[in-house]
Amino acid sequence: MQVDLPTLQRFFASAPFVADLGIEPTAAGDGRVSSELALQPRHFQHTGQVHAGVMVTLADHSMGAAAQTLAADGFFVVTAELSTRLLRAATGERLLCEARVIKPGRQISFTEADVWCLRDGERVHVLRASATMALVPRDRL
Amino acid sequence: MQVDLPTLQRFFASAPFVADLGIEPTAAGDGRVSSELALQPRHFQHTGQVHAGVMVTLADHSMGAAAQTLAADGFFVVTAELSTRLLRAATGERLLCEARVIKPGRQISFTEADVWCLRDGERVHVLRASATMALVPRDRL
Amino acid sequence: MQVDLPTLQRFFASAPFVADLGIEPTAAGDGRVSSELALQPRHFQHTGQVHAGVMVTLADHSMGAAAQTLAADGFFVVTAELSTRLLRAATGERLLCEARVIKPGRQISFTEADVWCLRDGERVHVLRASATMALVPRDRL
Amino acid sequence: MQVDLPTLQRFFASAPFVADLGIEPTAAGDGRVSSELALQPRHFQHTGQVHAGVMVTLADHSMGAAAQTLAADGFFVVTAELSTRLLRAATGERLLCEARVIKPGRQISFTEADVWCLRDGERVHVLRASATMALVPRDRL
Repeated sequence: MQVDLPTLQRFFASAPFVADLGIEPTAAGDGRVSSELALQPRHFQHTGQVHAGVMVTLADHSMGAAAQTLAADGFFVVTAELSTRLLRAATGERLLCEARVIKPGRQISFTEADVWCLRDGERVHVLRASATMALVPRDRL
Repeated sequence: MQVDLPTLQRFFASAPFVADLGIEPTAAGDGRVSSELALQPRHFQHTGQVHAGVMVTLADHSMGAAAQTLAADGFFVVTAELSTRLLRAATGERLLCEARVIKPGRQISFTEADVWCLRDGERVHVLRASATMALVPRDRL
Repeated sequence: MQVDLPTLQRFFASAPFVADLGIEPTAAGDGRVSSELALQPRHFQHTGQVHAGVMVTLADHSMGAAAQTLAADGFFVVTAELSTRLLRAATGERLLCEARVIKPGRQISFTEADVWCLRDGERVHVLRASATMALVPRDRL
Repeated sequence: MQVDLPTLQRFFASAPFVADLGIEPTAAGDGRVSSELALQPRHFQHTGQVHAGVMVTLADHSMGAAAQTLAADGFFVVTAELSTRLLRAATGERLLCEARVIKPGRQISFTEADVWCLRDGERVHVLRASATMALVPRDRL
């Protein structure tokens, strides 16, 4: 995949769930994708914290895109395994995510991501994610 | 938490993100919660498969509720760590989830969940999740 | 790999670390391997409990062998990702492990394992493991 | 726990499995522990690579020690959940590990570790681990 922001914006916009939540890419490089989400009332838990599912979606999609930037032509990235640790309660106005490939491969790429929430102008580190991404030939998808 | 379906329905309905997605509990017992989600176009990936984030949200919330059924009064269940394996591509009309506590504890409970998609009347096993749930005294939340 | 106990015994005996710890297979089937370990003083923590590393080694090797029983000729199983939850303190005379493939694949197989310790004749469930196993062509190993 | 190397050396030496493998701490700070292992033939797989169990033991014990450096008096660190990704085949003369606390807590601390192997004088990054550590009052252990 070509690594420029307009390409990445089309990639994010083409996934209905990601577009529905309001997740947008903000920067890209080889093996790196940044993204963010303006929080709305529907993204929360009954406890007043952002639902884990929102943050996991943000991290998973951004890690998949980061892996896709390094994938060979004709190969699609599919999440095989996804693991997250929730470091702190997430509240605030906006989520910021930075995803990166820590080891690209032919069959499997390993990725990581961090999520911060922006609360009264301060960045609070709320989630750390790791994933095992499978690279699947287009005709086997 | 009292373990009956009306209580569980209020518990799910009170979480805006869960209500917004359309996730509903269908059965409950001590340490067990079943739930489901009627799939809509907005729940999918650009590849035509259900987005991992939708399935993780379903599994996470159902595991949290299962752990809450066994929690002592005054303790809230919070996801500390969440790990999922995506076994097969998920398409179809409906997701079904079964969550259970595999080891309840005073500080930490371990849970698991499976997600199936219902496709042309057949149940296909698409995701398996595990979580480490923290039991937090209400006044520390 | 042919699935009979003598083949599996040679497979376990050929791995120096597994032989050194004293891990032995006890039963095998398509996608399933059972194994055990007679506990010695050197397998423990300073707290008097079995060290997590001993149990993880037992689970990892047994899951790898279970995946190998379903691998195509010329493909080797390599652990890509390994996740464990430690349910209870492990003490006793012997560890028992049951490993199984939950989803075999061409590039990736997903496996799980449980470990019990045998304490005064009683089986205590102490660990649950999940792994993502990569199937690597012999010439790429 | 007091954070100096002699204290840490006694902590590592008191765990029979860690001493038996030959794992030794090399540096310590608040929430950080470095350790290493001189590889011996018994640490390997049949494929000529270091067994995952050896690297997981190194990472797990070092992360536990790192969490213990920040634990309140009277609290013991116990691994609740441990997850590892094996980035590359590990061969060479020595394993090096750096473990750190990414979020300390009263009930739960989150830790991470990296393992490198030293091969012909070069450091190769072979494993990345994450763990959820439970802080257990001494009288409940």
